[in-house]
Amino acid sequence: MEQIKIGIVGYGNLGKGVKKGISNYPDMNLTAIFTRRPVESINITEKEIKILNVDDAQKYKDKIDVMILCGGSATDLPVQGPAFAKMFNTIDSFDTHNKIPEYYEKMNKAASENENTSAISIGWDPGLFSINRTLFEAILPQGKGYTFWGPGVSQGHSDAIRRIKGVKNAIQYTVPINESIDRVRSGDNPDLKTDEKHLRKCYVVIEKDANQEKIEEQIKNMPDYFADYQTEVNFISEKELQKEHSQMPHGGFVIRSAKTGENKENKQLLEFSLKLDSNPEFTASVLIAYARAVHKLNQEGTTGAKTVFDIPLSYLSIKSPAELRRQML
Amino acid sequence: MEQIKIGIVGYGNLGKGVKKGISNYPDMNLTAIFTRRPVESINITEKEIKILNVDDAQKYKDKIDVMILCGGSATDLPVQGPAFAKMFNTIDSFDTHNKIPEYYEKMNKAASENENTSAISIGWDPGLFSINRTLFEAILPQGKGYTFWGPGVSQGHSDAIRRIKGVKNAIQYTVPINESIDRVRSGDNPDLKTDEKHLRKCYVVIEKDANQEKIEEQIKNMPDYFADYQTEVNFISEKELQKEHSQMPHGGFVIRSAKTGENKENKQLLEFSLKLDSNPEFTASVLIAYARAVHKLNQEGTTGAKTVFDIPLSYLSIKSPAELRRQML
Repeated sequence: MEQIKIGIVGYGNLGKGVKKGISNYPDMNLTAIFTRRPVESINITEKEIKILNVDDAQKYKDKIDVMILCGGSATDLPVQGPAFAKMFNTIDSFDTHNKIPEYYEKMNKAASENENTSAISIGWDPGLFSINRTLFEAILPQGKGYTFWGPGVSQGHSDAIRRIKGVKNAIQYTVPINESIDRVRSGDNPDLKTDEKHLRKCYVVIEKDANQEKIEEQIKNMPDYFADYQTEVNFISEKELQKEHSQMPHGGFVIRSAKTGENKENKQLLEFSLKLDSNPEFTASVLIAYARAVHKLNQEGTTGAKTVFDIPLSYLSIKSPAELRRQML
Repeated sequence: MEQIKIGIVGYGNLGKGVKKGISNYPDMNLTAIFTRRPVESINITEKEIKILNVDDAQKYKDKIDVMILCGGSATDLPVQGPAFAKMFNTIDSFDTHNKIPEYYEKMNKAASENENTSAISIGWDPGLFSINRTLFEAILPQGKGYTFWGPGVSQGHSDAIRRIKGVKNAIQYTVPINESIDRVRSGDNPDLKTDEKHLRKCYVVIEKDANQEKIEEQIKNMPDYFADYQTEVNFISEKELQKEHSQMPHGGFVIRSAKTGENKENKQLLEFSLKLDSNPEFTASVLIAYARAVHKLNQEGTTGAKTVFDIPLSYLSIKSPAELRRQML
């Protein structure tokens, strides 16, 4: 079987997820990991995988089919994305929703001009959730769509708590409100306010002499992050935080309900959901599947930036179109 | 807004579903309904929609953008499909799974040779369920996938009961076994036997002097249809059947669970589900969305037979690719 040669750029949680997952895909081969950290600080047992400085990537232009960019959306990808799209086919999980159009234009230019193919904003939201929101809306335009996230860790909200004076460490879970999900499933098409969809559970470790009450107030009143939500604040020890809250679960629901029939008498409900023990390992799985698609597209001469909306499903599968029709349809 | 001119071929439950649904799609317009029945037997109030004999279809070659073929897979579509694909862009819901490859070849030839575009086997299974089975498998190849159908009416099983001597009328519901769905959701990856996945609930009306016990035996022992299942047989009156069992609900679940991580310690669960009050009206909604895709593909010069695996999602949406990136990603 032809092996698609994969490179990883950035060896944080997501990059580690790609490395751990890749052996499940028989047509994929991890060639190298590129990092900004000292190369010797990364310990892996597989001798065949090279650990290299990110600045050496250009030397691998002909040795890697697809680079999976595992940096963050805030500062890494806006720079790394276009730079790598000039040299390689790429996959990334750029997820700053309101900056996607601008990022797309830059990636499309860099990839097109160099005859590369770049799939951007891949993962589950943006990604699989976007697929389902769009599919559901196209099929039942008269209905109403909902996205619920969690239960899962929000890094942005956890960071926001950690920036408060007197806070040593913190983790924040976004929790969808089950009663609201049930109302949506019942076909009511309710108008849900922000605080009716999700609540925020915080586990906070404070400095010895910090004012617990004041910190709780600060969290609950923080604009944008917590002020509009039901927020629960729990103070715990660093030990408990490490023991009970070091996993990265996540998940969520995309639901659309609509009525059909002469008198709108028939309820129709579509639902897509994820329940993930490890958010980065799952996101990595989605990136790997799309790496296959990008490789196939590029081999066919389809270049430029692509999103989940542009890529036919057959490109993601290891099966041929004829096998898909025979086995999967 | 440009109007896509739609024709319906076959005015049974599915064709009626298309007619009832189409006003929800602002870029679609129903031009004509083609039927084999006497034209005057079809009563609709909209004067702008023509009711025509199916043999007159060829006169509408330049007046209809996409024909939605609403005939059955057993005898209608194998003949109608290729005949219409020579004249029109088409959509159909061909669902005889083991004959799809053969049907694809015929449709591909008829459509390609005449520069038409035909989306085949559109609906929810085959269709949306096929999309999710394939997407899930591509992302988590190491996992295990499951499809559960129902609760919903199976026409094939209802017909099989009706063919038994002494049976006046019957309806059969395929019911997924909740305990098994829960086991799958728990991440156990169980091997489920046929009778652990679904049970079959039958509501049967018998002739006055028919032997109830014997009929129940015949149903429960019918090979392929019932013998391998837990089958529940309820005898009811024709009146009750009409009152309680004249709806066509259906639905189902596509679930995949897999483990990721160094030691396969993290469960990952993906689920897609449908809960439909009206199976034909929902299937019609899927066909209409794909009619838009077929029209766009054909306008771009992409011809031949296509399945859900071949068509990028952006073609289904009324939104432009830029709008999709801005609003839906």
